[in-house]
Amino acid sequence: MYNKKAYELGSVRSVIRELFEYGKKRAAEAGADKVYDFSLGNPSVAPPAEVEEAIRDLTTTTEPVKLHGYTSAQGDQGVREAIAEYIRESFGVPMTADYIYMTCGAAAALTITLNALVADKGQNVVVPAPYFPEYKVFVEAAGAEFRVCPMRTEDFSPDMDAMEKAIDSSTAAVIVNSPNNPSGVVYSKECVERICKLLGDKSAEYGHPIYLISDEPYRELVYGGEAPEYIMNHYKNTVVCYSYSKSLSLPGERIGYIAVSPEAVDAREIYLAVMGAGRALGYVCAPSLMQYVVKRCLYLSPDIASYEENRELIYGALTKMGYDCVRPDGAFYLFVAAPGGDSEAFSEKAKEYGILVVPGDGFGAPGYVRISYCVAKKTIENSLPAFEALLKEYK
Amino acid sequence: MYNKKAYELGSVRSVIRELFEYGKKRAAEAGADKVYDFSLGNPSVAPPAEVEEAIRDLTTTTEPVKLHGYTSAQGDQGVREAIAEYIRESFGVPMTADYIYMTCGAAAALTITLNALVADKGQNVVVPAPYFPEYKVFVEAAGAEFRVCPMRTEDFSPDMDAMEKAIDSSTAAVIVNSPNNPSGVVYSKECVERICKLLGDKSAEYGHPIYLISDEPYRELVYGGEAPEYIMNHYKNTVVCYSYSKSLSLPGERIGYIAVSPEAVDAREIYLAVMGAGRALGYVCAPSLMQYVVKRCLYLSPDIASYEENRELIYGALTKMGYDCVRPDGAFYLFVAAPGGDSEAFSEKAKEYGILVVPGDGFGAPGYVRISYCVAKKTIENSLPAFEALLKEYK
Repeated sequence: MYNKKAYELGSVRSVIRELFEYGKKRAAEAGADKVYDFSLGNPSVAPPAEVEEAIRDLTTTTEPVKLHGYTSAQGDQGVREAIAEYIRESFGVPMTADYIYMTCGAAAALTITLNALVADKGQNVVVPAPYFPEYKVFVEAAGAEFRVCPMRTEDFSPDMDAMEKAIDSSTAAVIVNSPNNPSGVVYSKECVERICKLLGDKSAEYGHPIYLISDEPYRELVYGGEAPEYIMNHYKNTVVCYSYSKSLSLPGERIGYIAVSPEAVDAREIYLAVMGAGRALGYVCAPSLMQYVVKRCLYLSPDIASYEENRELIYGALTKMGYDCVRPDGAFYLFVAAPGGDSEAFSEKAKEYGILVVPGDGFGAPGYVRISYCVAKKTIENSLPAFEALLKEYK
Repeated sequence: MYNKKAYELGSVRSVIRELFEYGKKRAAEAGADKVYDFSLGNPSVAPPAEVEEAIRDLTTTTEPVKLHGYTSAQGDQGVREAIAEYIRESFGVPMTADYIYMTCGAAAALTITLNALVADKGQNVVVPAPYFPEYKVFVEAAGAEFRVCPMRTEDFSPDMDAMEKAIDSSTAAVIVNSPNNPSGVVYSKECVERICKLLGDKSAEYGHPIYLISDEPYRELVYGGEAPEYIMNHYKNTVVCYSYSKSLSLPGERIGYIAVSPEAVDAREIYLAVMGAGRALGYVCAPSLMQYVVKRCLYLSPDIASYEENRELIYGALTKMGYDCVRPDGAFYLFVAAPGGDSEAFSEKAKEYGILVVPGDGFGAPGYVRISYCVAKKTIENSLPAFEALLKEYK
């Protein structure tokens, strides 16, 4: 007598975790220098020093009962005002504190948003491949059908014809994620405009808004080129799910927010539904100390120099060897066509060389593998002969 | 097009929050010294100094990428081992790290546990009055019927005949909360034994375990007398939901755990269902820094001296005036029979005297009001003439 679906979710370890555990075991057996673990998207760059300073300073300057006390359910007013101001200044949208809801990271932001938006069980949520695998778990837990639309393999942008076909009158929302996990691709302005136009047209056709959920944990992790478009500037029915996990290297602290566009249809009702969904899921408030910490660190830039160096190194080396991949402009992932075409077989073969890469099947992109290059530069350098030898098996 | 149920949950402010906001407004108008706010269960005692020291020390001695990085979904192994050891030593149950799951506080522990245990929509969860109002939200969000069984008004223990009638073959679990919010009552050993015997008998009768969810945020907040029974010692099919919110005065930090009894039927499956439910609700891991902080502070005792002083003061004064209430042995609540019998009317009348107390209706106990005495002693002292004048209105 227990929930079988929850049991299955809990007992089937994700492929990524499986690889990570394998890597730890192999490192213990063969030596850590013989394992090149590119499986996890865990930032390898430390948080900015200001983060630790803010933590220490807050513990000495703020009254403890306030510092560690409940904030209001939507987050501390001052924190939300500061974030709203940051969004206004950075992106030019009319954000206010009344539309910011602090969350325990992006995963909580997504589950809360989905539970707020999905009105009944017959609805669906459309997600272009390649996508973060937990989207499927979150969408289905909110009671909606998880509907994938395929990607264009030349640049990993959504296949717009397929997206048009995937959306129907029961579509509650579309989730986009740019910079993208697992491809590292940043959607171009044209791409964003196409998606937003389609959603606008479809909303008009069906007589109700189709919301765009923009999952943006990698927003600040872009290399050269232009900053990612701010989706709210292109589409009013947007809900942003943000996390400081990557930008401030705080993934374990679970701190992020939901920003509902104040210009969305039913914006107030959506925000209240977000509050209600958060309440029903057991989110009393986002961790209080970390709320105050991010308030002090809003304008810090992550140290992306080392990620960019890694990108240049691994992208350059692998393409020179003959691997086939799209140059990523953001996040810390490289999405590579699996030599031989079978990504699971390739991932297994790679393990023989000590290389851990994640098959793309779980990302809705069989035939590809994800390489997380948020690792020490030395790991990449040391792995290159192994990558070369591995590729030879397929020639 | 949004979730109407979530919207309703988000837009109907809880009575407690309503009172709290009213109190802030009135304090601004009439002066803070004219408002006696007994509405919120927010600890008024600061965390032990060791908590702030642990935070500062961890930021200087632990590698930041580890300190703020993802822990495994169930929580850091070392933290779970330390908590399991604490439980073994303190309560003599054979707990191991494999049955501890770190959570974002007790609310998350409850929603995750309920989502793990409720197998299908036709089930119910039985809760003796008086109860924490969010239980209803959590049980219904997990898809079960919220079924209340009445209390015995002489000591606020469950009416066992009523509980027997409330439990049927579709009962997934019973939630108990001792020390109790809102009554402050600690269930006696006999009371615990009666409940556990009933659940054992009913489990045998229906051929499946009925789980006992023990919500224990106030475990350490007891005054004199004996420590609360550890339910796992009396009933093997127990899941404990614990929080450090009250014992370490860290309610905003959202740190607690689920402990599944290793001796429960299907213990392994229940634990895996807990992991799956946590995943589906968006709980990636409990806040990492706070996991390490509580590990260092496991054996600290809360400063209950000031709560106990408050209890003596307010219980003594109110009963002397003629208010009717059961002497509370734990938590920081006093549950008082509303003079006149109508708790909402009494709460409204009390506002005229600057006194904010919560009507018991939301706790499943109309006719009573909850007084949270986790306030400054001075607030209680200053409020006593107002309490006296208020009571005169009913004489």
